[in-house]
Amino acid sequence: MAEASRTSEARRDAVFGRWVVFSPARSRRPTDLKSHAPANPSPGAGAGAGGAPKPSCPFCLGRESECAPEIFRVPALPDASPWRIRVIENLYPALRRDAEPPAPDGEVGEVMPGERAVVGFGFHDVVIETPRHDVRLWDLDAGGVSDVLLAYARRVRQLMEHPAVKYVQVFKNHGASAGASMAHSHSQMLGTPFVPPSVTTRLNCMKEVFERLGKCSLCEFQSKDIFVSETHNFSAIAPFAASYPFEIWIIPRQHSSYFHEIDKDMALDLGSLLRTMLAKLSKQLNDPPFNFMIHSAPFGVSSSCLPYTHWFLQIVPQLSVIGGFEIGSGCYINPVFPEDAAKILRELDC
Amino acid sequence: MAEASRTSEARRDAVFGRWVVFSPARSRRPTDLKSHAPANPSPGAGAGAGGAPKPSCPFCLGRESECAPEIFRVPALPDASPWRIRVIENLYPALRRDAEPPAPDGEVGEVMPGERAVVGFGFHDVVIETPRHDVRLWDLDAGGVSDVLLAYARRVRQLMEHPAVKYVQVFKNHGASAGASMAHSHSQMLGTPFVPPSVTTRLNCMKEVFERLGKCSLCEFQSKDIFVSETHNFSAIAPFAASYPFEIWIIPRQHSSYFHEIDKDMALDLGSLLRTMLAKLSKQLNDPPFNFMIHSAPFGVSSSCLPYTHWFLQIVPQLSVIGGFEIGSGCYINPVFPEDAAKILRELDC
Repeated sequence: MAEASRTSEARRDAVFGRWVVFSPARSRRPTDLKSHAPANPSPGAGAGAGGAPKPSCPFCLGRESECAPEIFRVPALPDASPWRIRVIENLYPALRRDAEPPAPDGEVGEVMPGERAVVGFGFHDVVIETPRHDVRLWDLDAGGVSDVLLAYARRVRQLMEHPAVKYVQVFKNHGASAGASMAHSHSQMLGTPFVPPSVTTRLNCMKEVFERLGKCSLCEFQSKDIFVSETHNFSAIAPFAASYPFEIWIIPRQHSSYFHEIDKDMALDLGSLLRTMLAKLSKQLNDPPFNFMIHSAPFGVSSSCLPYTHWFLQIVPQLSVIGGFEIGSGCYINPVFPEDAAKILRELDC
Repeated sequence: MAEASRTSEARRDAVFGRWVVFSPARSRRPTDLKSHAPANPSPGAGAGAGGAPKPSCPFCLGRESECAPEIFRVPALPDASPWRIRVIENLYPALRRDAEPPAPDGEVGEVMPGERAVVGFGFHDVVIETPRHDVRLWDLDAGGVSDVLLAYARRVRQLMEHPAVKYVQVFKNHGASAGASMAHSHSQMLGTPFVPPSVTTRLNCMKEVFERLGKCSLCEFQSKDIFVSETHNFSAIAPFAASYPFEIWIIPRQHSSYFHEIDKDMALDLGSLLRTMLAKLSKQLNDPPFNFMIHSAPFGVSSSCLPYTHWFLQIVPQLSVIGGFEIGSGCYINPVFPEDAAKILRELDC
């Protein structure tokens, strides 16, 4: 097998500027890597027959009154039933929409040298992707996944209108060990009054590449060794310096800075590819817990930043444990070369 | 209780420049936070009576031949028995000491714009902290912990002699969910041919504070609200912008850039404080899995960097799951304010 001849290698990616140590000797063969803690071993487990609501789940159809306030639903009419998607406030928000937004210079000053504090203002919303407890995101058809993506984009555009919101992090946690506190399929987004550190690092890294080489880090066509699948508008790859085994990036093939500008055709195309990739990961890795994150440009960046900011969606199966080396150094150890992960996923029929 | 009046707050620390969202509403009371997966519920579990070796453990006394080669042992004489500490090569190294070290300009060039790859050269060593399977690091007396710290420092000094090694990350994983693959008490270190990303970020952040304020981020005396304990040479604090609940930093009170320059008196002092902190965390949090990491200066930095690089030891109990928000944004959500964690740990008798 291809991986048998590989030796340890350290790689740095062109988007986050992270060093990753690829160490195949530490792992079994890539094809043997499976999740030991499937997120949801049998779809429908715990749900009533025929997709009936689970008694204790407030995200199920008919339990809307037990949730925090609704922001909008799809279909749009409040009295339309059954709804297919609901965007609601998080009942236990990490940031509070009712807190006083920080003024543009609203930091409370340095507590100690270099330390800063601001009130915990922000938005923390939940996207319930389906009214059915037993349906996973990739059980929906491409149109259904596309509607979820369009709901993300619509809510991001709403949050962008708030002058104090600098960034919206859209993400999905699937499985308890990936951070999901509810089994019912949902995603989340946090609108923050600051640009998060990884976003700053990403922009700085992509800027450095652009200034030195005149190229966007994600526009250049990727090596076919790490290619997994593509549609008219998107490519799915196992990134060259993946931090996690079987990590996947879905990247718009045309340069685009903002996810929230996605249109219906693009969303349908992305929905189809995202659905396929999640199904492939689930099949290959035994329904692993996973996260996906949308990496977009912060609001209000200057037009000079747009040529090097290119949004993408990152999927991270949770197969390994993060230890002291990763926490301390910020450097990850990945037992699976992306070329091997890409080959396995490319050849998997889903 | 103090925490009842707290509301969400976002804080940025002066060492890593990370934003952390403190969100007490998402948690129970800080005193109720416990590990649900104790690392090692009963000391001695699985070990033979009276501390006899566990049959399957190659780190136990008498099983030395099953390990990768020894680098040194304490006591120093190879024929001294029983040894108290052994420093050995990792049998499954992430980086390989037998690979060709990269030349100073030894990158293989840009694979794609901005992407880099180097051979996986480096050192991956293990410190077996005790010959007994049933002894945890904080079961040793202060002198015993001090000897482990001195073994770290000695091995770091050896690795520093290699011209291609730029940094040594010393770390300990305790418990399987914190990344420990062996239950027998041990630590690890990785000597890397590059300066890891978190180290670069830390130095840049501390440099910015120093240039703006003329102060080292860690020399200024910390607020007494986050103070936990101290000795003649070290302070233990719950850092102002802790990324993790009950995270602890042990900081030399006198400015010092390099951990590996620690002397016997300092090591005894640090051994005593580290032992106390680990015992407090174990008692308060139900023997949680944890990591600790030593953050030092990279080798060969210019003398102008020394005034703002200040080494410290970071202890991170693993009580919560990292989800898509943290992976995507690099920003952590912490349900426990450090002032509350510090008060609880300060008042705990150990």
